[in-house]
Amino acid sequence: MKPQRSIGLAGVLLVRACSAQTYQRLGTCPTLGCVFPPDQAEFIAGQFFDIRLEVHAPINGSEANGKQPDEKFTFTIAKRDDTPVPATEYFKLSEPKLERWNFSWYEDLFARDAHKPSIVNVTSKAYRRVALYEPGEYIATLTYNNGTKTEASWLVRDLQEVRKAKNIIMFIGDGMTTNMITAARLIAHKTVNGRYQTKMAMDKFPILGHQMTHSIDTFITDSANSASALYTGHKSTVNCLGVYADSSKDPFDDPKVETIAEMFYRLTGGHVGIVSTAYIADATPAALTAHTRDRGQYGAIVDSFLNGITNYTWTNWTGPDVLFGGGAEQFYDPKLGGKTYQNKDYYNEFAKKGYQIVWNNTALAKAGNDSKTLGIFTVSNMAKWLDRNVYKNNLNQSLSPSGDKKPALDQPGLKEMTIKAIDILTKRSGEKGFFLMSEAASIDKMMHVLDYDRALGELLELDDTVKATIEHLKTLKKFNETLILVTADHGHGFDVMGSVDTKYLAAQNADRKRRNAVGTYEKSGLSQYINTGNLTYTEGVHFPSNWDPRYTLFQGLAADPDRRENYQVHKNGPRVPAVNITSEADYYVNPKDAPDGFVINGTLPVADDQGVHSLTDVPVFAMGPCQESFGGVYNSIDIFFGMAECFGLGRGRPQSSY
Amino acid sequence: MKPQRSIGLAGVLLVRACSAQTYQRLGTCPTLGCVFPPDQAEFIAGQFFDIRLEVHAPINGSEANGKQPDEKFTFTIAKRDDTPVPATEYFKLSEPKLERWNFSWYEDLFARDAHKPSIVNVTSKAYRRVALYEPGEYIATLTYNNGTKTEASWLVRDLQEVRKAKNIIMFIGDGMTTNMITAARLIAHKTVNGRYQTKMAMDKFPILGHQMTHSIDTFITDSANSASALYTGHKSTVNCLGVYADSSKDPFDDPKVETIAEMFYRLTGGHVGIVSTAYIADATPAALTAHTRDRGQYGAIVDSFLNGITNYTWTNWTGPDVLFGGGAEQFYDPKLGGKTYQNKDYYNEFAKKGYQIVWNNTALAKAGNDSKTLGIFTVSNMAKWLDRNVYKNNLNQSLSPSGDKKPALDQPGLKEMTIKAIDILTKRSGEKGFFLMSEAASIDKMMHVLDYDRALGELLELDDTVKATIEHLKTLKKFNETLILVTADHGHGFDVMGSVDTKYLAAQNADRKRRNAVGTYEKSGLSQYINTGNLTYTEGVHFPSNWDPRYTLFQGLAADPDRRENYQVHKNGPRVPAVNITSEADYYVNPKDAPDGFVINGTLPVADDQGVHSLTDVPVFAMGPCQESFGGVYNSIDIFFGMAECFGLGRGRPQSSY
Repeated sequence: MKPQRSIGLAGVLLVRACSAQTYQRLGTCPTLGCVFPPDQAEFIAGQFFDIRLEVHAPINGSEANGKQPDEKFTFTIAKRDDTPVPATEYFKLSEPKLERWNFSWYEDLFARDAHKPSIVNVTSKAYRRVALYEPGEYIATLTYNNGTKTEASWLVRDLQEVRKAKNIIMFIGDGMTTNMITAARLIAHKTVNGRYQTKMAMDKFPILGHQMTHSIDTFITDSANSASALYTGHKSTVNCLGVYADSSKDPFDDPKVETIAEMFYRLTGGHVGIVSTAYIADATPAALTAHTRDRGQYGAIVDSFLNGITNYTWTNWTGPDVLFGGGAEQFYDPKLGGKTYQNKDYYNEFAKKGYQIVWNNTALAKAGNDSKTLGIFTVSNMAKWLDRNVYKNNLNQSLSPSGDKKPALDQPGLKEMTIKAIDILTKRSGEKGFFLMSEAASIDKMMHVLDYDRALGELLELDDTVKATIEHLKTLKKFNETLILVTADHGHGFDVMGSVDTKYLAAQNADRKRRNAVGTYEKSGLSQYINTGNLTYTEGVHFPSNWDPRYTLFQGLAADPDRRENYQVHKNGPRVPAVNITSEADYYVNPKDAPDGFVINGTLPVADDQGVHSLTDVPVFAMGPCQESFGGVYNSIDIFFGMAECFGLGRGRPQSSY
Repeated sequence: MKPQRSIGLAGVLLVRACSAQTYQRLGTCPTLGCVFPPDQAEFIAGQFFDIRLEVHAPINGSEANGKQPDEKFTFTIAKRDDTPVPATEYFKLSEPKLERWNFSWYEDLFARDAHKPSIVNVTSKAYRRVALYEPGEYIATLTYNNGTKTEASWLVRDLQEVRKAKNIIMFIGDGMTTNMITAARLIAHKTVNGRYQTKMAMDKFPILGHQMTHSIDTFITDSANSASALYTGHKSTVNCLGVYADSSKDPFDDPKVETIAEMFYRLTGGHVGIVSTAYIADATPAALTAHTRDRGQYGAIVDSFLNGITNYTWTNWTGPDVLFGGGAEQFYDPKLGGKTYQNKDYYNEFAKKGYQIVWNNTALAKAGNDSKTLGIFTVSNMAKWLDRNVYKNNLNQSLSPSGDKKPALDQPGLKEMTIKAIDILTKRSGEKGFFLMSEAASIDKMMHVLDYDRALGELLELDDTVKATIEHLKTLKKFNETLILVTADHGHGFDVMGSVDTKYLAAQNADRKRRNAVGTYEKSGLSQYINTGNLTYTEGVHFPSNWDPRYTLFQGLAADPDRRENYQVHKNGPRVPAVNITSEADYYVNPKDAPDGFVINGTLPVADDQGVHSLTDVPVFAMGPCQESFGGVYNSIDIFFGMAECFGLGRGRPQSSY
């Protein structure tokens, strides 16, 4: 998992323009000549990627150089210490056509307020679907403006070729941090005198690691960019799925990098499953097959699940065996209100390719394991564990996956989807093996709206799913050949600092008095989520027995909109902490949210209505073949390389195909 | 590191009184008969401990039983399935005398506001300095009130006897979380296109674990209690050092448990070193030798460093080889204003026992390595890295360790103290080996006052110390025989969520506009703490080159007093975020703190003036002999057992002594 590169000299040549912070002219391109993939990019041998070159001519602003962008730039490539040759020769491609465009950006917030954008003219070329097949360091050189050079050092990692895992199951708890796992353990597992009597499934994993989640060009990431890093080994820019962000307006022409799912399928014929509790076009599932700089292209993302990339020659792709989640509005007929790609009915499109289609938990359970299966269970995000199991009235919304506006009452949980996915993948993949990504998406979604109870419920459902997965793999006799990873894509600020006596809080008549209901240190006490109440579960399943105890958790973070806190469960469905009371985006406390709580003014820009992601390294729990590759502290991209090596994908030869 | 106990049936018998949360009658004693150590306590074979029994008779409140406390309670002990025998017979002790007292507590905040305490009469006995020598499960049974029983299952862990490490160096970053390590890395290590060009020393450790820090009777801990768990294998109550909290008024009669330092010295003659950047009587160093339920007994704590426990027969102790830190006021003559134990001059007391005494960094460097050494470098806590290295004017305070009211300008850092400690311990311990605890105390202290820059500076100094320690051990050829652990005692809520354009913030004229200076996600940019500025360090030493960049970190947490944030470095010394403006404790924004920032109202009780600890599991980095024992997720007490097993302390026979 450790890069084998000596610290690149090429990197030292780059001096970032320090003024670009809130905004950047173009991430990873501090000079006026841009190479994507940029300096210090790393690859698996044979991994497909595109190259994008850009030459920038800023016509105003601090970098204005009074020039038109160079049309005669050149680009060479060579292994370090070899003689550089033109990329067309190296990759046996004809010369790409020259492209031109311009774009604008703000140098800082003052420029934004003054409506003074900086304009940049651009010349560009793109080399599509190339690969490097020999391990080692390569130097890619863009020469522009009469001899100015941008050098990129690219490393093809030297990995073992032996496949060690037949299957990989990658669980992603979106936004899940160690702080949240600690809180979830507290509310769902009993202690006696400081000893937990049971453990989280994650706690029992033999190997623990930390991964760094930062973007390539900013230190806080989003789920698109972070999922792409985990799946491709390439960090990129916020909102990007499987591409580096170029400066063109087209969201579908950015330089692509091949994903673990695409490589596994192309090189070994392995089978792929995708499961999420989000709308299925959301970033974390999307990043397995989509390649766009705009994660909001939901219709095209759904098409990519089925058909792969169609605007350029790319990798083989014929659809996953399993695609389970929400987001029916990207599938059903636009006549019913669907918002689909090219106005097609995507249930039909999937059915035409042989998929069985299921719309509820009952049908999911009954579905055969022989066919490719599309399971779409609701419009938008799937119902939360807390609403499916405790506050069931909240399911009465017009979210039926068929588009008939009825409620989607019979939704499966992450566990039911994941176990069924394993059954189908096991049956269909045979000796080829499978890769399954299963995402607990609403940990993050509920943290965003400060709805900590629902977020922790989703985390506990993830843990319950991990536990059931291990048991199921053992029953199927597939446990020993399956690598299981449980990790997150990024952090989200959250911690627990004590308890709140909600009865006392409600009895006070002023905010400053209400704060005295908070108990810290020796006044925090023990969890009342498990020692009170009467909710019960199957033996060995751990959730709170009471979500609404008198003494709740004193929890939260500082990167929030204005809100009011009473530290109680939000029984009427996911929380809306702040509302817009003006014609412009200017969010204040939602008067309907926690009306008996105390107001906390936010710290985020007033145009923000919810909390944000955080910097923290996130944990990685590993069990199975290659588990030892995932201990210690490393970059998120190393997870891609660890999985690819475990699958023996490290030697994709030019002619290889299953 | 995994307990070998089957889940104790005894534990299931205990049903905690649910009303006790903000306050508890007595932690770990949910019934009216109390046994300390309580149910599920674990021990090393031969580890000394005291037993305290209490019978409670509440005379009012919800538990009032109209009885006088039983005077004729009995206490038996046996290995599970053996015949119980009286403890006096089992331990060959005469019957302890019966003690009596009463105490009061509040059932909840309403009772507190109404000034209605509940009174409890108590009878009690204590058995002093006993030990269990055979691995296995023991049942200790208190029988009271005509047959009511409190059963405690005690486990002596079955550990390997072979000593694997000659030395252990335990670094404690007080309050240090993964979130803070991530932030420290960001401000001190360069990235190029998403790749860190250098790593933290901690990041290079081969083994990563997470430890759970909760107290025995509350889920949030303090440093006394958590350090005791790390050093003794026994979780306890907030404010306790090396004891379980009983209900008596005397802070020195609580039942003790032997520490790793005491056992290592008593059983092997190993040498001990204690280093901290706090006043040396502070909880984390104190917990190695002190045994009191009140961490505020500073004078007695200093005496315990030198003389051990003197009010009861206890373990052999003749003082550590090395004691380095602040807190001169507990040493110098009371005539100069010292606040010492029994009004003695503790510089004299240490000198009489053969200690050389040093008061500044110059003397520390020159001191010989043959003698036991006391190094006290300032009144109160030691100066912070940021003030010693960047804002040096802040050292001009009357803090000289001699008590002469001059400034303490020549203070060593954690690195200088730790390296000197290693030199002395190596020289003096010879074949016996050593145990060194080195604490970066002000990570937590500066987090408490929301002074994030200073906190991260202390964390970076810890990392620099770890790096220097590894190099120094290699030079001394002691690296392969030394287990190095880097961990924390508890979490403290903190995360980084983006960046702040402080220039833009300062130019706005309203709080809601100032918040627009915050940049999240793609607007967070990259760290300007390392890409700007002109501070430079020795090759390989990583600290920010600029602590005062235009774009700073958007950081903090929600468990705070009222405060004003401008997200800039506090140049005039450690921050004071809130001040008391009334005769009662009622804290508001400090008008002198960040006057150009925006106000954030606090969430803590208004009597609190600073931030608080948090729940999160904290990381453990391990390198050296036995490193594999410290991977995965476990309880904090498991660190004690891991260290004790690595030192081969797992078979303390009755007669053993070095």
